[in-house]
Amino acid sequence: MEQFDINILGCGSALPTTKHHLSSQVINLRGKLYMIDCGEGTQLQFRSMKLNFNRLNHIFLSHLHGDHCLGLPGLISTMSMLGRTAELHIHAHPDAEKIFKPVLQYFCKELLYPVCFHSLDPHKNELIFEDRTLKVYTIPLKHRIPTTGFLFEEKPASVRHIIREMTDFYQVPVSQMKAIKEGMNFVTPEREIIPNRRLTIPAKLPHRYAYCSDTCYFEKIIPLIEGVDLLYHEATFSEEDLARAKETFHSSARQAALIAKKAKVKRLVLGHFSARYPDELPLLKEALAVFPETILANEKMVIRI
Amino acid sequence: MEQFDINILGCGSALPTTKHHLSSQVINLRGKLYMIDCGEGTQLQFRSMKLNFNRLNHIFLSHLHGDHCLGLPGLISTMSMLGRTAELHIHAHPDAEKIFKPVLQYFCKELLYPVCFHSLDPHKNELIFEDRTLKVYTIPLKHRIPTTGFLFEEKPASVRHIIREMTDFYQVPVSQMKAIKEGMNFVTPEREIIPNRRLTIPAKLPHRYAYCSDTCYFEKIIPLIEGVDLLYHEATFSEEDLARAKETFHSSARQAALIAKKAKVKRLVLGHFSARYPDELPLLKEALAVFPETILANEKMVIRI
Repeated sequence: MEQFDINILGCGSALPTTKHHLSSQVINLRGKLYMIDCGEGTQLQFRSMKLNFNRLNHIFLSHLHGDHCLGLPGLISTMSMLGRTAELHIHAHPDAEKIFKPVLQYFCKELLYPVCFHSLDPHKNELIFEDRTLKVYTIPLKHRIPTTGFLFEEKPASVRHIIREMTDFYQVPVSQMKAIKEGMNFVTPEREIIPNRRLTIPAKLPHRYAYCSDTCYFEKIIPLIEGVDLLYHEATFSEEDLARAKETFHSSARQAALIAKKAKVKRLVLGHFSARYPDELPLLKEALAVFPETILANEKMVIRI
Repeated sequence: MEQFDINILGCGSALPTTKHHLSSQVINLRGKLYMIDCGEGTQLQFRSMKLNFNRLNHIFLSHLHGDHCLGLPGLISTMSMLGRTAELHIHAHPDAEKIFKPVLQYFCKELLYPVCFHSLDPHKNELIFEDRTLKVYTIPLKHRIPTTGFLFEEKPASVRHIIREMTDFYQVPVSQMKAIKEGMNFVTPEREIIPNRRLTIPAKLPHRYAYCSDTCYFEKIIPLIEGVDLLYHEATFSEEDLARAKETFHSSARQAALIAKKAKVKRLVLGHFSARYPDELPLLKEALAVFPETILANEKMVIRI
């Protein structure tokens, strides 16, 4: 099994408390780190979770509310002091570059590495990033300002699995194995065509993680996150404060669970908790009543997919 | 005795560690709070020290390196969410307004209170702020960019103390007591002039606190901080790393102690520790050898003056 971990750096909402930090997560996929959101204090949480700055090359910002991105200048500055030379890529709403570039130019005059901003369109569901191990798609959400969730889809290590007995039987040469794994048929020296499906089986389905914060209850995301292994959905409020949730375009824990249920996800983790709740057990209870595979996020939690 | 407390929110240097937070302090003078510097994470430390946002109306920034001011937007935004309506005053280098105004305009669109920037000249030693209880003076420091320390001078509750026996003897009417306290002579009905010094004694000397960070060893500050009750002086490095201290315009702990000794201050507190030291005992030792009344700053420490 390949490593696919979600590190929770902060799961509080806009008002930080002594209990919860501002929004940030780090995905560890086979040793490479991908950050989602970067609230104030993220670099401190990053350090205290003993994550490695050198493994972080991509940061995805869901939206430009301060509690999701104001930790960016400090993080960028710290990585420069630590001697970083590798490019850092920020995937965010086009305004991010407009707002943060002057701040970086002022505070990080001696920056040793390039910071590249990549604009995303929060109104579209599209592939915005791909590397050898991962694809990232946007998930348009409904909040007070343009906001996108992210779907992280692991790429399988190989496209198909070899059925060793069959390749031995047909004496497939080693030189052709790579093509067979990629779906090619095999042609024997006698020019007989052996269809690929007799030589391979499909690799296991890729693991998928969906991050949906901040958003009101928004059913349009359901087809986009259907069946994911893990869904992080904001649950800023309890059902009792539904009026406040509607007013601020946030969700209740029950609504998060409804989305999870309708999208048939495997597990749900709740986060982005309002500072008004001394603890989140009532939120957990109302979600569990709808969707049993629910847990509460917490700082320094690592969820393995 | 009136309350005059220094709350240490962060005393690390530019690179935050799991041990030290970025620079910030809060002075509590008779219940009113005055902040010095505001590194990332300051609002979290402020909350965890259970300080009251409503009592904070003035923030003084020593210089515009990120580790001393990047917590500002988050703090301002949080106070707005908490319903603040009172003006907030930022005293800083003129660039502060230029840099932070666009950030605040973007992230704090619904700000409920005015944020007023007051430019200070970091090259001058002058009175920059005065209210009923306090005077604040700038202390030009020597760092890589324009930087100022601050001298906080308490105002005595009354200018002079009445000698009750004498005012009774001369039958000073109640209506003239205020003027007598302020230093006026008393004229009897017989036109005899009673000098003020026979009716009053000087109030006790006002308490004074000096904050000097960041700076290299800089003797020009000595006359400006002479005899203060408490001096916070940066001690980023140990004497062993003096070359690095010179290169970066920082001080060693021994140099901080030399300044304290030459300025005949009552007590010295060291801070702004480099991340390279697993603990600061060696710094304390080298300072104590020069100036015995030295302590190390630490997060959540409260120093009473």
